[in-house]
Amino acid sequence: MGLSRRQLISRLAAAGGYGAAFSGMQALGLLSATPAQAADDLPPSLGRGRSVTVLGAGIAGLVSAYRLEQAGFRVSVIEARDRVGGRNWTIRDGARIELVGEADQTARLSEGLYFNAGPARIPSHHQGVLGYCKALGVPLEIEVNSSRSALLQSDAAFQGRPIQQRQAVNDIRGQISELLAKATRRGALDVELNAEDRERLIAFLRPYGDLGPDLSYGGSERSGYLTPPGAAEQAGIKRTPLALSELLKGETTPNILFEDNILMQATMFQPVGGMDRIPVALAKTLRGPLRLNAEVLKISQSASSARVVWRDRRTGTEHEITSDYLVVTLPLNLLAGLDTGFDAPFKTAIAGAVYDRSAKVAFEAPRFWEAEQIYGGLSFPGGGTGAVWYPSDGVHTPRGVLVGAYVAGAPAQAFQAKPLAGQIAAARAAVERLHPGHGGDLIRPIVVDWNKVPFNRGPWLHWETDGNDPAAYRLLNQPQGRIHLTGAHLSHLPSWQEGAVASAHRTVGLIAEQAREFDLRRSSQG
Amino acid sequence: MGLSRRQLISRLAAAGGYGAAFSGMQALGLLSATPAQAADDLPPSLGRGRSVTVLGAGIAGLVSAYRLEQAGFRVSVIEARDRVGGRNWTIRDGARIELVGEADQTARLSEGLYFNAGPARIPSHHQGVLGYCKALGVPLEIEVNSSRSALLQSDAAFQGRPIQQRQAVNDIRGQISELLAKATRRGALDVELNAEDRERLIAFLRPYGDLGPDLSYGGSERSGYLTPPGAAEQAGIKRTPLALSELLKGETTPNILFEDNILMQATMFQPVGGMDRIPVALAKTLRGPLRLNAEVLKISQSASSARVVWRDRRTGTEHEITSDYLVVTLPLNLLAGLDTGFDAPFKTAIAGAVYDRSAKVAFEAPRFWEAEQIYGGLSFPGGGTGAVWYPSDGVHTPRGVLVGAYVAGAPAQAFQAKPLAGQIAAARAAVERLHPGHGGDLIRPIVVDWNKVPFNRGPWLHWETDGNDPAAYRLLNQPQGRIHLTGAHLSHLPSWQEGAVASAHRTVGLIAEQAREFDLRRSSQG
Repeated sequence: MGLSRRQLISRLAAAGGYGAAFSGMQALGLLSATPAQAADDLPPSLGRGRSVTVLGAGIAGLVSAYRLEQAGFRVSVIEARDRVGGRNWTIRDGARIELVGEADQTARLSEGLYFNAGPARIPSHHQGVLGYCKALGVPLEIEVNSSRSALLQSDAAFQGRPIQQRQAVNDIRGQISELLAKATRRGALDVELNAEDRERLIAFLRPYGDLGPDLSYGGSERSGYLTPPGAAEQAGIKRTPLALSELLKGETTPNILFEDNILMQATMFQPVGGMDRIPVALAKTLRGPLRLNAEVLKISQSASSARVVWRDRRTGTEHEITSDYLVVTLPLNLLAGLDTGFDAPFKTAIAGAVYDRSAKVAFEAPRFWEAEQIYGGLSFPGGGTGAVWYPSDGVHTPRGVLVGAYVAGAPAQAFQAKPLAGQIAAARAAVERLHPGHGGDLIRPIVVDWNKVPFNRGPWLHWETDGNDPAAYRLLNQPQGRIHLTGAHLSHLPSWQEGAVASAHRTVGLIAEQAREFDLRRSSQG
Repeated sequence: MGLSRRQLISRLAAAGGYGAAFSGMQALGLLSATPAQAADDLPPSLGRGRSVTVLGAGIAGLVSAYRLEQAGFRVSVIEARDRVGGRNWTIRDGARIELVGEADQTARLSEGLYFNAGPARIPSHHQGVLGYCKALGVPLEIEVNSSRSALLQSDAAFQGRPIQQRQAVNDIRGQISELLAKATRRGALDVELNAEDRERLIAFLRPYGDLGPDLSYGGSERSGYLTPPGAAEQAGIKRTPLALSELLKGETTPNILFEDNILMQATMFQPVGGMDRIPVALAKTLRGPLRLNAEVLKISQSASSARVVWRDRRTGTEHEITSDYLVVTLPLNLLAGLDTGFDAPFKTAIAGAVYDRSAKVAFEAPRFWEAEQIYGGLSFPGGGTGAVWYPSDGVHTPRGVLVGAYVAGAPAQAFQAKPLAGQIAAARAAVERLHPGHGGDLIRPIVVDWNKVPFNRGPWLHWETDGNDPAAYRLLNQPQGRIHLTGAHLSHLPSWQEGAVASAHRTVGLIAEQAREFDLRRSSQG
């Protein structure tokens, strides 16, 4: 009562740090719940006379740098690779793909083609990333994440023949609706539903399942045609429905739910021309230095500053930078190998992080999938190569980039154990199972095995599984004096750019809080 | 046996006319089942020395003209309007909208904005239309036909408050899965399913419905978040599920099935810049004359030719053309008023056609829907104004064209009974119910009431309903000597451009058959 907004926030901050202050602001309706706006309100004078070094020019590093510069900080960015973006990596013709323990690959792709080896779609609720696209003028186009003409294939069902997703989606819904309507009629749900709701449910199940008057499912045009409707006497003839028992045998059938994963729901986007348009646009805004080919060797801090020692990878010379704060976006499995000066529990938390596995194999090909009315989306072959992902752009052009295998999690381990040629062959075989006769159309393979990519050595990590320790996550999210670990790995969206944005915004807020506290202390001393 | 392909087709044709020949060719694997290719194989010399007049420069007329010219015919096109496309009508700034019985409207739209008053999406299985886009180089982009962030609203449910489609889709699936799993466990489906299938079904329903270990549905992230996942301690908090009984009360709830209507399934397209890019591209290919502002007054035929009398709408002068064949794409309700010389049953069939009703009301507006993470797709408000349709293009630009009402069928009658100002007000009110506070953002309304559009007076007709006679459809699909009625109204896709393409291809095939028969007769006489 009687406290100003700023005083209230300061009190909250004093009581529980920035995290509590942030939650408090949310509760008071002072901040939007979306992370996009979390670092919006900083006065441009806040950072005056203060410096920050950002380690890593991926999304987390670039967003941190961008926001800190907007708040008046002097920012340097240090990046080990010869490009910005980190895992946001768009491969075009001529790009060199270095994988640890493998011969280098050189990408060969026709003009205009590209391969988003890392992130390749943005959900409509990732307003942080989309907000930067809007603010920086990065043109977006629709990423087709679901196509009813795309395929499911399983050796356990339909003699291994692929089926269209429209068949699985609609024949399952039809048969499930029939079963539920009949069970309801039989009184099996009289405990759960009153008479009125039972009638409403049955009335709803008719259109839901496209049921007949007797509540049976006899197939639906929704599942596609044997003969499409045409002129004059050419009436559409719907397909015979696929048997539920056979549909349930396919281990890939549950992928009909893929499109309703909250992270996969329509509408989704991709930047026109490649995902790296985002980090490139972010990097262009920076006024301070951005050093590429600069590999971090050591970080340390004193009571008054933080220090980074880095090596120029082209010349081998070592350099150091001293600044007020450090934003460290390096993956934990790389950070574990650095000289950091962190205390033992923090080092243990870093060293214990277990990354997931992931690989993508891309090919250039003529657009044979368009002849099957597939213009984007994903097919799901069985057999451990993950998804086949069709391009969303360039419809009706001669050629496209097909991701023949995108595998993560448990199946990725066996996949990655193959030599690169074996991974390529497995991806080609998966495409051949889906599109008989077209495995041979795939040329110019590119394999990106994220666990072998230098300066990553893993795609992301899941804190709640894989032997990870959620307590380590909480600890690593605590600033260590002037040093702030930042990145998607320190968010609840570890495999999404939005997680990097959210973590960066939080870090910028924390540094702003530290700067304010420093000013308050100084002014109370003066 | 021993017959050539051509002889075989000729025999089939002799036995049952072109229809039988076409079906026979399909059965023999000589033709693709897709209508796009039906007129592909005509030799370019077939039409040499023969002429065709095409009445109407909509899709059916333009495709007929294009194919006939490719087959060597001399073609003239007569079109009553001052533009090509027919119902394929893209309205841009400055366009005049004339409606019978209403004051003219002049479209006012910011630069780059347009309104597809007629067709506005192309399914991926409409390979005829897509084939022309590909062949003629009409650039396509994705039409977003489904968005999980778009809304459902009903005064009968949730106190009239809109809900996101992701909530309805996933909360219904979850609760239906729970009910079915429990009924199965209780033995209610022991007749339909054996023990193995019962276990498979239950195992499938867990991920299908996102059910808990006890098979109950406790909500799902699929339905969206109260708090989105973010950095550090900001874990995602899923919404409380909506009650099935309440969901079933909403009369708009069944629209969650809209996206699985075979004509609405992903992936769908729109030409970049407006649907009329297609007729414009088709018209550009024509070598023969295309007369705009040319209103047909009379058609007739003799044993040796067909004749059209038309009036120049600018000068009032009358003209006539004589040719070997006529392709008549005029809507039946206009054709009914012409002097045609058809026999009585044919005239009766034409006069009896009952068209459906349809209207669209479009507005220009700032993109307030993007703040709700809607980037295309359709929302379904209750109240008789049909769908609200968001633009698929121009994401992150300042303004867009919002279709505030797209109504067809029975509800359209009451809607169209309102004066235009009332239709605009009703559309605005529907948008306001979905997006409180934004009804007033809608400016520059454009009403296209297809039953009042000159030279249409109706959007399409359904032969199997609305009092129409399927026998009339069959009759009108029979050529009358040298005159061929053609158009989407003579196909099983009367409200889709693909129907126009299919009918045009069939007509071209029939004219080719007539020309061949004529040649055969002449050669057997000589």
